[in-house]
Amino acid sequence: MSNAGNDIEEGLVFAPKFNNDGLIPAIACDAETGAVLMFAYMNRQALDKTIETGQAHYWSRSRSKLWHKGETSGEILHVHALLTDCDQDAVVLKVKAGGRGATCHTGRVSCFYRQLDGIGQAPAKASLKFVGKERLFDPDEVYGSNDPA
Amino acid sequence: MSNAGNDIEEGLVFAPKFNNDGLIPAIACDAETGAVLMFAYMNRQALDKTIETGQAHYWSRSRSKLWHKGETSGEILHVHALLTDCDQDAVVLKVKAGGRGATCHTGRVSCFYRQLDGIGQAPAKASLKFVGKERLFDPDEVYGSNDPA
Repeated sequence: MSNAGNDIEEGLVFAPKFNNDGLIPAIACDAETGAVLMFAYMNRQALDKTIETGQAHYWSRSRSKLWHKGETSGEILHVHALLTDCDQDAVVLKVKAGGRGATCHTGRVSCFYRQLDGIGQAPAKASLKFVGKERLFDPDEVYGSNDPA
Repeated sequence: MSNAGNDIEEGLVFAPKFNNDGLIPAIACDAETGAVLMFAYMNRQALDKTIETGQAHYWSRSRSKLWHKGETSGEILHVHALLTDCDQDAVVLKVKAGGRGATCHTGRVSCFYRQLDGIGQAPAKASLKFVGKERLFDPDEVYGSNDPA
């Protein structure tokens, strides 16, 4: 790995590196607060769709299909900025959440609604606590018998 | 996928789900500003070490070994909080960067120092622009001929 001067790290050509499954990790953050809202993967098509439309698209690994986030729930993610990292194998989306502002399929603002209770202790003793439990919608009402999307 | 009531999504037992390679994605964010600093993977050992020590450890896929972030550069990530997502297959670390505060091996505050110039246009036309170009250290001085760590 070179530290400087190579095109991937220092260039201005966007050359996203997809993994062996053809996917790139995508971290969606609230454009205003910076809070991480969700984490998922994109394939080339999903990334291109995201750039073209300004709305987050992913590759659903469980359903093996392109996933326009919010297509069922209305919880569209409007992309204000897309950043890539030094080796261009991950992207950050700075988004404004549409709909009710509940990005998580559980109806919560963020998928990261639980925090480990106890850094600095034996991992086996660590449990979780809620840090954002409130639901802005009832997933059973929104999704019914459909897969969350 | 169930929408509610299952233990993984609604429980307080930390049950991180590692992928087929035994890895879980880990997003490190600045605990104060919320800015995403880096993205890497942990295996079970790295996650346990992170929880025990309060310092970020990863699995280096390029070097196939446990990676104590900052062991060479001094750029330790002190973990203030660890969150997991709805299906417990990703974690967020809220960190305070030690050392010079340059988490990226290029010497920058964040690995996400370039932004796509042009959401809403044809992907082929999209290029990058720097949004955090300044280096807080010279990687050649810090790493010499060693791999960045």
